[in-house]
Amino acid sequence: MEMISFKNVDITGGFWAERQKINRETTVYSVYDRFKSTGRISTMDCSYKEGDPYKPHIYWGSDVFKWMEGAAYILAKKEDKKLHKLVNDVIDDVEKGVDENGYYNSYFNSIGITEPKFADRDKHELYSAGHMIEAAVALYNATGEDRLLKIAIKNTDYIDRVFRIEHSAKFITPGHEEIELALIKLYDLLKEPKYLELAKFFVLQRGKTKEQEIFANDGGVYSQSHTDVLHQTEAVGHAVRAVYLYCAIADLAKRLNDKELQKAAETLFNDIADKKMYITGGIGAQILGEAFSCRYDLPNRDAYAETCAAIGLAMFALRLNNQNEEEPCSEYADVIEKAIYNGMLSGVSLSGDAFFYENPLAVDLDALNIPRGHAYCTQRKKVFECSCCPPNITRIIASIGDYIYSQNKSRLFVNQYIQNKAEINGKKVEITTEYPKNGKIFIKTENKEIALRKPCWCKKVICSQKYTEQNGYLYFNDNEIKIEFLMEPEFYYANNKVHADIFKTALQYGPVVYCLEEQDQNESVFALKVNVNEKPKLINETFGGLNIIKAFGEVINYSENSLYTAQKPKLKKAVLKYIPYFSFANRGEDNMTVWVNY
Amino acid sequence: MEMISFKNVDITGGFWAERQKINRETTVYSVYDRFKSTGRISTMDCSYKEGDPYKPHIYWGSDVFKWMEGAAYILAKKEDKKLHKLVNDVIDDVEKGVDENGYYNSYFNSIGITEPKFADRDKHELYSAGHMIEAAVALYNATGEDRLLKIAIKNTDYIDRVFRIEHSAKFITPGHEEIELALIKLYDLLKEPKYLELAKFFVLQRGKTKEQEIFANDGGVYSQSHTDVLHQTEAVGHAVRAVYLYCAIADLAKRLNDKELQKAAETLFNDIADKKMYITGGIGAQILGEAFSCRYDLPNRDAYAETCAAIGLAMFALRLNNQNEEEPCSEYADVIEKAIYNGMLSGVSLSGDAFFYENPLAVDLDALNIPRGHAYCTQRKKVFECSCCPPNITRIIASIGDYIYSQNKSRLFVNQYIQNKAEINGKKVEITTEYPKNGKIFIKTENKEIALRKPCWCKKVICSQKYTEQNGYLYFNDNEIKIEFLMEPEFYYANNKVHADIFKTALQYGPVVYCLEEQDQNESVFALKVNVNEKPKLINETFGGLNIIKAFGEVINYSENSLYTAQKPKLKKAVLKYIPYFSFANRGEDNMTVWVNY
Repeated sequence: MEMISFKNVDITGGFWAERQKINRETTVYSVYDRFKSTGRISTMDCSYKEGDPYKPHIYWGSDVFKWMEGAAYILAKKEDKKLHKLVNDVIDDVEKGVDENGYYNSYFNSIGITEPKFADRDKHELYSAGHMIEAAVALYNATGEDRLLKIAIKNTDYIDRVFRIEHSAKFITPGHEEIELALIKLYDLLKEPKYLELAKFFVLQRGKTKEQEIFANDGGVYSQSHTDVLHQTEAVGHAVRAVYLYCAIADLAKRLNDKELQKAAETLFNDIADKKMYITGGIGAQILGEAFSCRYDLPNRDAYAETCAAIGLAMFALRLNNQNEEEPCSEYADVIEKAIYNGMLSGVSLSGDAFFYENPLAVDLDALNIPRGHAYCTQRKKVFECSCCPPNITRIIASIGDYIYSQNKSRLFVNQYIQNKAEINGKKVEITTEYPKNGKIFIKTENKEIALRKPCWCKKVICSQKYTEQNGYLYFNDNEIKIEFLMEPEFYYANNKVHADIFKTALQYGPVVYCLEEQDQNESVFALKVNVNEKPKLINETFGGLNIIKAFGEVINYSENSLYTAQKPKLKKAVLKYIPYFSFANRGEDNMTVWVNY
Repeated sequence: MEMISFKNVDITGGFWAERQKINRETTVYSVYDRFKSTGRISTMDCSYKEGDPYKPHIYWGSDVFKWMEGAAYILAKKEDKKLHKLVNDVIDDVEKGVDENGYYNSYFNSIGITEPKFADRDKHELYSAGHMIEAAVALYNATGEDRLLKIAIKNTDYIDRVFRIEHSAKFITPGHEEIELALIKLYDLLKEPKYLELAKFFVLQRGKTKEQEIFANDGGVYSQSHTDVLHQTEAVGHAVRAVYLYCAIADLAKRLNDKELQKAAETLFNDIADKKMYITGGIGAQILGEAFSCRYDLPNRDAYAETCAAIGLAMFALRLNNQNEEEPCSEYADVIEKAIYNGMLSGVSLSGDAFFYENPLAVDLDALNIPRGHAYCTQRKKVFECSCCPPNITRIIASIGDYIYSQNKSRLFVNQYIQNKAEINGKKVEITTEYPKNGKIFIKTENKEIALRKPCWCKKVICSQKYTEQNGYLYFNDNEIKIEFLMEPEFYYANNKVHADIFKTALQYGPVVYCLEEQDQNESVFALKVNVNEKPKLINETFGGLNIIKAFGEVINYSENSLYTAQKPKLKKAVLKYIPYFSFANRGEDNMTVWVNY
């Protein structure tokens, strides 16, 4: 199966067109402004001198490159002279910063000039190089301009020599994965075999030799270096590192047509999707090491669920979806849908200029006073010290069109329902929909051989046309399809191995997970109980672009002051007002919960 | 009001007689053996030399002195030549270890001989000295022997000089409180004003000057040094340190007849009892700093609730109970009852030779794999590196008679229902009861002016005699009283500010909190739901000396393998078998919970 690039797809209206507008008009500039005001932009020329106000950090370059990648995707769809100039100005600076070997890192080529290069596996040099490659490829594809690409090639060639040819680096594989999937992009663009070789080298050498451990004495688990990738059967360690690696495993499996690698990637995906994923598509449950926890440990208030990890999961699932050759199966696109509408989108404010790094599934303001544990982030911030998430949001929203279609030799597959017009292999296709406001979809296509994913949440398909169903896809032979995936508020329940959610329920409307914020209730969100037998209702009021949902239940009417009592708490009727999870914390700090007692 | 010492009271049968027998025959020897095998005993003579197998730790002496105090209470009631000799042998060693100033600490007088004394507030020197005083007073009271008392006096006089007279120590008040309440005991015994002065000095100077902070940069909160004691209105920091200090505040209030100090102590008590205490009487909810958390933060699985803290709470409540002059009020004795039957008693195995340091209210064995958080203790251990709890158990069980009676000018008060014969001011009193197996109590007394605490859990008093009720006490004028505090299984509910317990219930039978252990159910304890409207039943089977209780409910009958589903979990009928909380983990490692969904 082949991916269809967002370049072939114009998002023409609806939910994501609105998100892309905010991304294009606000987010990309807001991230730039914050990167400028924190010194990330000005230090890209590697001119830092003692006494300068901003000292470049080892990963600052990667933040800026990821922002450039996002900007490139925006420019690919619509020229914006101001943005284009900002990008070119950064490239001017990067050109100045490159050293005689073609090596570029804004830290090591300035403040860290005397430090040995490629000597510390945890210094993010290869991670930053990976993001330079991704930005360079994106820019070249968007504009045809190759200034950054030339720099990235030189830098990559230097890395190839040091790591793969001469083995003169002090470590073998990067402490933070990312360059592997970037090298595949470079290979795909240039068809130069050595980049595939280098990606293969980094992926396959990983965990084969004991290397510097990055976090605690965990045998390399944190950085997925505990064993070679073919023997990694559980998703472990730092979640973002993990999914970036898993993307590269999947990429390599496809390029090398390697069944074992493909199997490894699928096994890791299943471990995540079946045992370690929040209902929001958030992953990496625990703050300790920003990492996967053990199976079924999915705490709500203490959820880490980094925005970048949800994005990485969507990236990983997209790869698996697109190499589902023989029997395309909807499970990957279902997970993508979960991640993009919930755990990813919660990472950015409705206004587009503030971001969550962590995405908890419950906020308990009283718990802010608890001395143990970590400081809960209850409000989105404009920038972080480690500001990987904001530009990651920028690039995924700008390129969300990547997620809509895929095709194999005979057929076009629709994976996500986003209003768009596209031209694929010379054939036009058009989707008209208000999804996820409702599940009504109208498709006009010049390619009659088309299959539509039936979303995993869908209990009833309304369609008068003939189709067959296989592995979650509905196969049509029509030029026009009118279909409705009936969308109704639905209560979900976690596997009872997830002790955090036992006797609790989460409300979903289509792919969108809902939550309760205290300002919408008359009561503490934690003292509410929802009646799952009474049908929730959409009300004629929206938040975050979607309908607010009213459910019915009860609340503890507690008047006691004592700590314990034999008096059973009295309940009184209550109406629960649910808003989309992704839109929480847009009206000030508040108690919030996704999982509600039933 | 005046405390009646356990020396006047013989426990003649029933629940506590059994516990005292195990304590006397097993616990006191088991603790000694472990202290011997870990080097704590042999290093008491301060002869440690480089290369010796055991290096004394700064607080090892305190463990041994606390064990001696417990042994003394046992000897006070019943001579035991073997135990008496073990005690005397340790005193021989202590005598050898004292330095020319009369200073004794088994670390500083051997391995730490070159280190400056009283230079580091966190080195437990005054804490250890306090435990020496407590042991010395206990031994003198028990046996009339004053060898250890003489040593303790010299050591205390040295401390008095260094701290109070010459101010030559490098700190003002101890990092770990304990000596304050010990000094009061020494003062009570000898009536030497300087010991009262020194206690007053340590208590009142505390927090008046910024001193070395023991834990993190918390402004002294961890060691209750953040402000002077009159301005401490919330129980904070390390829970054992806190309650030991609060004991001394109460002690001083009484000795100095100081209403402000008394008010301070009561305020701190109320903060604990109304906002920071588990239903088991456990306190110090969080592992971080073994400390009080913020109000209403009472996590179950992550409960710290150190055994010593529950004991300290009982000690503190006893003091407040006994200085309830005008209007004796039962709230203190109610808290004592909670602590001794639950959070304290869970600290020791039924066999008497193994101990919990932490007392969680839920055990989730799956959670043992969670990388963040702390390693859960699921089984009692024979000894700990920091082994303060085992001898603390020894001494409180041996002296549990202290908790039964108190008296004011006109009247004898019965605070705890423990079968005993006592002679108080020449008047005999005898209590016959199986409490807490049931609430039937028979009292014969030569003092007709008697008042009985009506336990806070009691909903119905069965008594045909005349009495009046005031502040939780029933006032009688009889030489014989036959009364029943009707004991029935009762569901308790936490204040809904305690988010950990919301929509959950705990079963209590009289003062005893019950729990579910998984081996008694056919199901996961976390998937069970109890029907609080159906009356639980005592069954004809005991565990830990008390009846097992059968309750009725449902359990999730879950067959799904997926992580999330829209299928509401099916419930099937279930019988819940509750055992006393204090007896959990006596049949191997198991999942356990006190709070059950209802």
